[in-house]
Amino acid sequence: MRMVDIIENKRDGRELSTEEIQFFIKGYTDGSIPDYQASALMMAIFFQGMTEKERADLTLAMVQSGDQIDLSEIEGIKVDKHSTGGVGDTTTLVLGPLVAALDVPVAKMSGRGLGHTGGTIDKLESVKGFHVEIENQEFIDLVNKNKVAVIGQSGNLTPADKKLYALRDVTATVDSIPLIAASIMSKKIAAGADAIVLDVKTGAGAFMKTLDDSRELAKAMVRIGNNVGRNTMAVISDMSQPLGYAIGNVLEVKEAIDTLKGEGPEDLTELCLTLGSHMVYLAKKANTLKEAREMLQGVINDGTALKVFKTFLSSQGGDASVVDDPSKLPQAKYLIELEAKEDGYVSEIVADEIGTAAMLLGAGRATKESVIDLAVGLVLRKKIGDQVKKGESLVTIYSNFEDVEEVKTKLYENITISSKKVPAPVLIHEEITE
Amino acid sequence: MRMVDIIENKRDGRELSTEEIQFFIKGYTDGSIPDYQASALMMAIFFQGMTEKERADLTLAMVQSGDQIDLSEIEGIKVDKHSTGGVGDTTTLVLGPLVAALDVPVAKMSGRGLGHTGGTIDKLESVKGFHVEIENQEFIDLVNKNKVAVIGQSGNLTPADKKLYALRDVTATVDSIPLIAASIMSKKIAAGADAIVLDVKTGAGAFMKTLDDSRELAKAMVRIGNNVGRNTMAVISDMSQPLGYAIGNVLEVKEAIDTLKGEGPEDLTELCLTLGSHMVYLAKKANTLKEAREMLQGVINDGTALKVFKTFLSSQGGDASVVDDPSKLPQAKYLIELEAKEDGYVSEIVADEIGTAAMLLGAGRATKESVIDLAVGLVLRKKIGDQVKKGESLVTIYSNFEDVEEVKTKLYENITISSKKVPAPVLIHEEITE
Repeated sequence: MRMVDIIENKRDGRELSTEEIQFFIKGYTDGSIPDYQASALMMAIFFQGMTEKERADLTLAMVQSGDQIDLSEIEGIKVDKHSTGGVGDTTTLVLGPLVAALDVPVAKMSGRGLGHTGGTIDKLESVKGFHVEIENQEFIDLVNKNKVAVIGQSGNLTPADKKLYALRDVTATVDSIPLIAASIMSKKIAAGADAIVLDVKTGAGAFMKTLDDSRELAKAMVRIGNNVGRNTMAVISDMSQPLGYAIGNVLEVKEAIDTLKGEGPEDLTELCLTLGSHMVYLAKKANTLKEAREMLQGVINDGTALKVFKTFLSSQGGDASVVDDPSKLPQAKYLIELEAKEDGYVSEIVADEIGTAAMLLGAGRATKESVIDLAVGLVLRKKIGDQVKKGESLVTIYSNFEDVEEVKTKLYENITISSKKVPAPVLIHEEITE
Repeated sequence: MRMVDIIENKRDGRELSTEEIQFFIKGYTDGSIPDYQASALMMAIFFQGMTEKERADLTLAMVQSGDQIDLSEIEGIKVDKHSTGGVGDTTTLVLGPLVAALDVPVAKMSGRGLGHTGGTIDKLESVKGFHVEIENQEFIDLVNKNKVAVIGQSGNLTPADKKLYALRDVTATVDSIPLIAASIMSKKIAAGADAIVLDVKTGAGAFMKTLDDSRELAKAMVRIGNNVGRNTMAVISDMSQPLGYAIGNVLEVKEAIDTLKGEGPEDLTELCLTLGSHMVYLAKKANTLKEAREMLQGVINDGTALKVFKTFLSSQGGDASVVDDPSKLPQAKYLIELEAKEDGYVSEIVADEIGTAAMLLGAGRATKESVIDLAVGLVLRKKIGDQVKKGESLVTIYSNFEDVEEVKTKLYENITISSKKVPAPVLIHEEITE
């Protein structure tokens, strides 16, 4: 088998065989196939696409390129949730304890990464003492005991995907739905999930800007999952404006606590209930989605979800008293209000630009070396469709420096007030199960 | 400027600017742009093509990537001829002395290369004493004196093209007409030609198998040439069967001598007169193509062309007496006839397979290290449309080994005899000047 023939087959629109895809991934991982052949293949895939069979083959080949996490010692069906990424997305912090309260095991492996705010681990580390550097066995024991635990990324998971992604990034071959789908799914599968709930964001603040693209990506991932024997479904949710109100690490932890108490933002609560229902249903803890949702609402109302969150924090060394007294979390020095310059209705909040504003305050990492300021960020006071009067606060800026003119300018540029009332955007666009 | 943006521009169908193309070629030549970005761009070009402006820019950037031959000391308009390559193509050997006899300067830089037979230099070196290792000044003086000289390739011509071609070869990006056209034209322009006559072969034995593809390539090259200020035209000629009768180095030298005497094969003679007319016309030695053709016919008939060939050979150390006594050229040990197995008409001679049969005898190079046997090869006794009787010779095999069963089998497989008469293929399909 020769790599040049594999490239030519794809270039000319022929379906690659399982053996050809395995040959490529194995050879690329071990270095016997050079970057320049891999990038030519990626560009050919950009133009020719991949069949369903090829996508499943590529995903499995990438899974097999490295370690696979063995979660078989954990009782029950492990359901993982994955979001394609947005601004102010606090669902992971809420969903972990929420579904764990219904005995759905949540064995979360998480990273730090780059972005507008830190990753799940960064956010959790704002709770004093909390740590994710635990042994695999302790991790498994904790999930069995508390139904929820988080561990830092370790092991050599999907090295082929890591190497390919770095290559795609510099060869203009990132924007290919089959490649994006295989990349995401390979990581979830290697991390040991039995079933997967995908939160595919759509809109200005999402990787996929249009509903059509989001739907195509969602379907691609759902089919890969189901074709390789993992029950998979996707929710397409709105990211035209940030989710919830808070953007920033500590601020999102507070918002997650509020949501677990039943006092969270309406959209964040609704999305957590929707995603959570699917997780509970896929974990076979409920017979219908309706039943699952009622169960979730139940553990919020009776305080069980909040209690699981506290146990989870203290089991990994964290000071669980912050749940009842969030003032113990790191606090920003300056709280500055962004005042509306006119009367009207909020008609647009450009999510990714708002995220960038939070990053300017220090809430996220621009490069791997950046140090995050956990205390800072933004809390929206108005969302799309809300009425606002001149002088009212649109956003509270939590900052550790006083001069936030640059942040203010960016916020003003990206929050539009119109004289006419605008409806709030639809939150859940579609649910895709096949 | 970032290479990844250049790739993305091409990927998305935007025209690259002159600066972007120069940035790419310069960076790729000096190694600052890696192979994996170049191959992604090549694949994007495969799918998106290139505009006329991009093609001219790419050609000039490749010309400027290395040395350029200065032929300004040679009097007159230097017209170069280039063939896209076929089987039994002896036109260069004929055309050099033929147009030189009309004072058209032929300053030929030639190589050895791979193929069914050797290159022009290999063929000429079958004449005892002939050599091409001459100094640049001697080369120029010889052209001014004799109007024709050949020099071996030297200097660092179009290094960008060499590097890119090697990359395209292993990334399935060879078959792109803009890239093929720019590659060929950059080499001709760097070699100092003022005007260029292209012989674009079409048919089973050619790189371009269909007339449509051949026309597209011809037009692409003619436009590049004219857009960068070199008068350029193309003839599309048939390569469904080998040109002339001889395939093999010495055998082709003999055939060239015959043709210069006016006793050559009809198709080879016709193609030489057609290409030669355009060369004489572009060199402004005739006012019309018809006049040019009559002049060429004149120097064949009166022996001038043959005399120029002798002077050319002896000026570069060769024994010109071979022209009158070709038996002084290296001779093969065995002459074996391939007898027709049935009566009928020759309906097909698969050119590239016949070429491979010649290579099996040792006439060409499969790899750079192969040693050529100059004496061996094939002489066709019948061509498409010819009547043949059972037992008559179809081909004479010139070999230095006795057992030629493998060669015979290949020849039988690729020469078809049908019961019905078949017309000879059209030789000159089109002439393209814009």
